[in-house]
Amino acid sequence: MKKFREMSRQELEALHGDLVKQYEDAKGKGLKLDMSRGKPSPAQLEISQDLMNVLCHDSNMKTEDGVDTRNYGIVDGIPEAKRLMAELIGVSAANVIVCGNASLPIMFDNISRSMTHGVCGSTPWCKLDKVKFLCPAPGYDRHFAITEYFGIEMITIPMSPEGPDMDLVEKYVSTDPAVKGIWCVPKYSNPQGYTYSDETVRRFAALQPAAEDFRIYWDNAYAVHHLYDETDRQDHLLEILSECNNAGHPDMVFEFCSTSKISMAGSGIAAVASSAKNLEWIRKSMTIQTIGYDKINQLRHVRYFKNAAGVAEHMKKHAQLLRPKFEAVEEVLERELGGLEIGSWTKPNGGYFISFDACEGCAKAIVAKCKEAGVILTGAGATFPYKKDPQDSNIRIAPSFPSPEEMAQATDLFVLCVKLVTVEKLLEEAAEKTA
Amino acid sequence: MKKFREMSRQELEALHGDLVKQYEDAKGKGLKLDMSRGKPSPAQLEISQDLMNVLCHDSNMKTEDGVDTRNYGIVDGIPEAKRLMAELIGVSAANVIVCGNASLPIMFDNISRSMTHGVCGSTPWCKLDKVKFLCPAPGYDRHFAITEYFGIEMITIPMSPEGPDMDLVEKYVSTDPAVKGIWCVPKYSNPQGYTYSDETVRRFAALQPAAEDFRIYWDNAYAVHHLYDETDRQDHLLEILSECNNAGHPDMVFEFCSTSKISMAGSGIAAVASSAKNLEWIRKSMTIQTIGYDKINQLRHVRYFKNAAGVAEHMKKHAQLLRPKFEAVEEVLERELGGLEIGSWTKPNGGYFISFDACEGCAKAIVAKCKEAGVILTGAGATFPYKKDPQDSNIRIAPSFPSPEEMAQATDLFVLCVKLVTVEKLLEEAAEKTA
Repeated sequence: MKKFREMSRQELEALHGDLVKQYEDAKGKGLKLDMSRGKPSPAQLEISQDLMNVLCHDSNMKTEDGVDTRNYGIVDGIPEAKRLMAELIGVSAANVIVCGNASLPIMFDNISRSMTHGVCGSTPWCKLDKVKFLCPAPGYDRHFAITEYFGIEMITIPMSPEGPDMDLVEKYVSTDPAVKGIWCVPKYSNPQGYTYSDETVRRFAALQPAAEDFRIYWDNAYAVHHLYDETDRQDHLLEILSECNNAGHPDMVFEFCSTSKISMAGSGIAAVASSAKNLEWIRKSMTIQTIGYDKINQLRHVRYFKNAAGVAEHMKKHAQLLRPKFEAVEEVLERELGGLEIGSWTKPNGGYFISFDACEGCAKAIVAKCKEAGVILTGAGATFPYKKDPQDSNIRIAPSFPSPEEMAQATDLFVLCVKLVTVEKLLEEAAEKTA
Repeated sequence: MKKFREMSRQELEALHGDLVKQYEDAKGKGLKLDMSRGKPSPAQLEISQDLMNVLCHDSNMKTEDGVDTRNYGIVDGIPEAKRLMAELIGVSAANVIVCGNASLPIMFDNISRSMTHGVCGSTPWCKLDKVKFLCPAPGYDRHFAITEYFGIEMITIPMSPEGPDMDLVEKYVSTDPAVKGIWCVPKYSNPQGYTYSDETVRRFAALQPAAEDFRIYWDNAYAVHHLYDETDRQDHLLEILSECNNAGHPDMVFEFCSTSKISMAGSGIAAVASSAKNLEWIRKSMTIQTIGYDKINQLRHVRYFKNAAGVAEHMKKHAQLLRPKFEAVEEVLERELGGLEIGSWTKPNGGYFISFDACEGCAKAIVAKCKEAGVILTGAGATFPYKKDPQDSNIRIAPSFPSPEEMAQATDLFVLCVKLVTVEKLLEEAAEKTA
């Protein structure tokens, strides 16, 4: 098939008629598929089901230090759980606090206490006229929802395969004291699956913030979530805490991670890693907020996985289930859209998403057409602050939940809608030119 | 022994010499006992150990509605967990949200979001000049720590066996719009073990707050924590949500409860009960803060306890272990201090504490003397806002953790210190009179 932009008006109109017919046929199939949220599939949850056997009636419920995990005590995580999470992201256990079942609330609580109490003694953000966060986009909708909830102004920063536009990041951070944070998913980013380059990480560490309470929110949600077993097909991320330390900015970063997509979604353990000073600030508030998190579940995870090597072995099973789904999507995209120049997409080595960029102004319409035909995609705009994609072109595809066959079906429908909507847009543009 | 206040100076001096010798002997025993925090004992944790067997490799991990508890979904608690918690406190499941492992963070988060976002549309508290909370005292130190952390002014309200001084409560609440809340532990209160009378509960429900965003924080932490099996020795608390509803103030109360002292301390489940409007306000923030809580642990609790009757049977085992400890304390207090009029103490039907009131000005010294001899008590003043007991007389005794024998030993030392410190105070007073 020709590149669409090289087609004549008649060719486009003929193609349009053909696509409309195909679309009606597709609607008649009564599809009901969801490729919108990054949920592990039931099969993925099964591979962790043995977690339920780890602790039983006769189990020793004590930590290696002899602390009974069933009772109150140790607010910031049992030592062996700190070690496990630290090992996953390459930091020291002394720089880790282990919390509850998810990292999102740790981020939310951090920002909430920055609002009410400031960061390490700075002015509480609720007392300031304006607080801003930089938002590399496409990015993670739940991050943006937090900053929007707190009335923090979000500034979009374009993404590239190396990471966010660091010229822009450096400019904002160094000149505007109202800029207090930046949202990052630095490894297998959501949704593009990009991993920040070494240079990007070093430039982050070298930032000279105008605001003393500027912090990098380094959400390392996909730290070990490779799609391939071969190390040359696995992304590697420079370790940010030591980079910041070496650059003389030890307190500039909060790093987050969790086992939600390793063990059980909603029943894993999560952690925050940072400098001693930042952790002290967190602890001061944590000890008021809670008596402690679920140490039994921390013990369960430690006994099951043992260490990072145990986690890596486990992740291969996840990868085995996820790979065919990603490949099913990529196969259809390449086959149906390759060379047509009506869309581009990422081919990640890990993570949970494929990011698709349609022609400008087409994303909302594509998502709507898919929905009409029974295929749910993440809402257009969701990957941008305020749910507003200035190009109306980015669409996030989540292959994890359905089966590979369902993903192929859903992508068949998706590419059909991409073509249909793009043709309609091109015909519209042609009509406007004539008018 | 005579009442101390009827003793002559010589008698007091002789007694003092005797007590000092006993105290030195006691110090020589090298005691190391802790009756400061309401922790369940290891034996109490053992009775719940079978919780670890409830879910295993072959278990059906789905809720009664077929939702997989291992995956994301259902942010506000699985239906059967809502039912269980609702039954414990006598409300409807529709008025319940089930959260994580503790109720303290639910309370903290409530107040935090009131600070940043106001309550159901009211002005955010961080924008107000002053916010006040009424604090029935003696009360729970962790409640007071939360309001102190947020800079909320705390007003002490005296407690009585029927509950807080309702004349004072009504006056403050109805005349001062800066009064936004009141901390209550209405059943087997911490530390006195009092249960609010029916009249008190009705007067709460009938409050006419000057502030539209005034809320009662009804921490029903000891809802089912009876020390005795006979129903005529169990306290009963009128159900607050329906009382408020009937009084035309359906949104005036947040009620909290948890299984921390039922199943495992730190690994139970917790809930908040309130009106539909209040729960909607909570959910709005919750869905930004978290993807959800640990549904597997909710399922575990439901499968283990089944219902309130199952919980009640389980609580009898707790009571069996706790009763001898409370009775050991009471026996020593009665034997050694009965009739001397140098202290009074509560005799609760449930809960986790005994509240002791020494002579004015003696509490700090008594706690210090006990510590010197190896017995830790809750810090004097801890049961009051700002850790300041205006009478310096209240001391909270927590019998749960040590064995009955250790509790008797600790109380022996305690009563010795009470006598010693009181005699020293009386001698001081006598000296001042003479001077």
